[in-house]
Amino acid sequence: MSGWTNIDGGATAARGYRAAGVHAGIKKSAPDLALLVSDRDAGVAGVFTRNRVQGATVRLCRERLHRGRARAVVINSGNANACTGPRGDADARRMAALAAELLAVEEESVFVCSTGTIGVPLPMPAVESGIRTAVETLAPAGGADAARAIMTTDTVAKQVAVEIEAGGGTVRIGGMAKGAGMIEPDMATMLAFLTTDAAVAPTALQESLATAVGKSFNRISVDGDQSCNDTVLMLANGASETAALDAQHPDWPLFLDAVEHVARELAHAIVRDGEGATKFVTLTVRGAASTADARQAARAVANSLLVKTAWYGEDPNWGRIIDAVGYSGAELRQDAIDIADDNLAIVRGGCAVPGYDPAPFRAILARDAFTVTVDLHAGTAADTVYTCDCSVDYVKINSEYTT
Amino acid sequence: MSGWTNIDGGATAARGYRAAGVHAGIKKSAPDLALLVSDRDAGVAGVFTRNRVQGATVRLCRERLHRGRARAVVINSGNANACTGPRGDADARRMAALAAELLAVEEESVFVCSTGTIGVPLPMPAVESGIRTAVETLAPAGGADAARAIMTTDTVAKQVAVEIEAGGGTVRIGGMAKGAGMIEPDMATMLAFLTTDAAVAPTALQESLATAVGKSFNRISVDGDQSCNDTVLMLANGASETAALDAQHPDWPLFLDAVEHVARELAHAIVRDGEGATKFVTLTVRGAASTADARQAARAVANSLLVKTAWYGEDPNWGRIIDAVGYSGAELRQDAIDIADDNLAIVRGGCAVPGYDPAPFRAILARDAFTVTVDLHAGTAADTVYTCDCSVDYVKINSEYTT
Repeated sequence: MSGWTNIDGGATAARGYRAAGVHAGIKKSAPDLALLVSDRDAGVAGVFTRNRVQGATVRLCRERLHRGRARAVVINSGNANACTGPRGDADARRMAALAAELLAVEEESVFVCSTGTIGVPLPMPAVESGIRTAVETLAPAGGADAARAIMTTDTVAKQVAVEIEAGGGTVRIGGMAKGAGMIEPDMATMLAFLTTDAAVAPTALQESLATAVGKSFNRISVDGDQSCNDTVLMLANGASETAALDAQHPDWPLFLDAVEHVARELAHAIVRDGEGATKFVTLTVRGAASTADARQAARAVANSLLVKTAWYGEDPNWGRIIDAVGYSGAELRQDAIDIADDNLAIVRGGCAVPGYDPAPFRAILARDAFTVTVDLHAGTAADTVYTCDCSVDYVKINSEYTT
Repeated sequence: MSGWTNIDGGATAARGYRAAGVHAGIKKSAPDLALLVSDRDAGVAGVFTRNRVQGATVRLCRERLHRGRARAVVINSGNANACTGPRGDADARRMAALAAELLAVEEESVFVCSTGTIGVPLPMPAVESGIRTAVETLAPAGGADAARAIMTTDTVAKQVAVEIEAGGGTVRIGGMAKGAGMIEPDMATMLAFLTTDAAVAPTALQESLATAVGKSFNRISVDGDQSCNDTVLMLANGASETAALDAQHPDWPLFLDAVEHVARELAHAIVRDGEGATKFVTLTVRGAASTADARQAARAVANSLLVKTAWYGEDPNWGRIIDAVGYSGAELRQDAIDIADDNLAIVRGGCAVPGYDPAPFRAILARDAFTVTVDLHAGTAADTVYTCDCSVDYVKINSEYTT
């Protein structure tokens, strides 16, 4: 039994937040600039890409995270402000400075995120006028607009919110995310913003976010690429006026659970909306000799183009799965491997099950969502990755669109 | 100046070899069984997949390689005889035994290779009748038929042959290969068979083959997958009646060079015929802190779906390249990275070159073949990978075909 209740909304479902999403002119016509504001000083936590090539805004966020406090986040889509040199750094700072000035908050409390094309300087006049419009249109119901404005090749806006009873009152946790391509465990061209009106100190907030990201955004894979801009930020502003939460509070596990749920729902929404994706696959490798082995094997399968195209073709081609497990580097004996689709055994001891009939497996793969479980029988470690198929549309999208 | 001359033919261009390619009935109508025979005892060398899941024939070849001598190789396409349990091992042995009996040679001197669908037992009555027909149709000009019979999703047969003056006479080296999908450095769903009429002892032959494979088949990438059946075998039967060659012979470098040329030409032919490939890309990472770093970075770029689809779209999207380099794990400073397409600088110091104009780069990417060079300026190590784009047809082929 879960302790949370789903509620409407996303990043502004929690009290004390306002947001806006506007068309600044970075993209031709779609919304491309979002602003998320906490009406009071909020604790802030962040998790960033491990890519060694990082966008200017990632550097800025990392730097400001040390203070532990935030008032606003400016986000633009259509341009990643990455590989743009010193000018990129100056542009990111300028975005924060302008928002701070207009909102009358400290410059250091404004965070900035960018997603989109790499290597092109931001059209700053457009960005600046977008920030002005966003400040003017900030609203407590602006979460949906903001969720739309951070999209790149996403086809649907991604918002989630829940409510829990914690700290002697009602606490809300919500969020928005964008994803689509370049998605891989360890994050990708994805941005996610979580907000809560709970009162949580930055250190505890960081701990809860890191745990949630480890079980959500770091467990998804669309194409195996990792972008230079991936960022997850979480703000906690205490506007619920409930007791401060931390590891010592009895409601802490409930809070952690709710944060994890919001993060996981957003992460799954990213996979479901993966570029060209037609299938949502929950892939588990168990019986591995170590967690690292389980993770490596799960990633090899999830990132195998041959596996992903077979899923797209609704072809129960377990040979491609066992092949990927074989080259993953995980310790294994091939004649010990079992594989099941939606818990129906397809491979036992490294061979097709006796009297193998592909028909029921074709029916499973025809579903929108299914599970694939690989048991290595080499130990007790397990790992799960959420992934999707690779379709003709994926290639079309990525050969025609410049990220 | 090279010491070799290209000649017609492939696996039977060297003297003392005969081959056949027939339709056994594993596939519906295309040729699916090849036989390559040396008329005298030949030294043999082999290089095999590092996948921990291996086909029955790979196990058999490894076992027989220790003897160092071969008379024949039976190869079937359409079925990989992998993940087929003890029956698969028995079937592989039966194929060798039957060929040995019909050819009146030692059973242990017959090698077997299979490529195609994983996990389905071989239709042995068809295979056996195919072997009989192949033995009956063996011919010195049968190399082309054999090259056709080993194809799976390949669209063209791949043969190469050269002649050199070595050991006091004319020596020929030829070969055939099949590839198409599942191609990655460290080999893949690929088989290659090289033959020479030079007299080379097995140890020296193994050394020359390993070196050549390291510079050819281990330097290509189509989709990042590695199959469980990849095998390269080389036979040297001495039918040229020239002096035995080894590392002490003055003509040894010339021989090595020719073997490497044959292997490289076959490897490049595999990439050119990569599933759905429309571009041949020579990708070099230089200025790396170590050879491992250069290799890792080159692989990350070559295997990035986003990079490959951008190439397909003829989009000079250097952002995806620098992004892949960034997550490769190679040591780097992002503001030191240079990138060039066909030697024209597109990125300098981690940013687009001043006054960047995509037009000339679009023209380069519109070519059938081009080079991409990444300089990390972090050291002196370099690595080159030969790869291709990822097209809509790749996905179509792999979602409709069961490997």
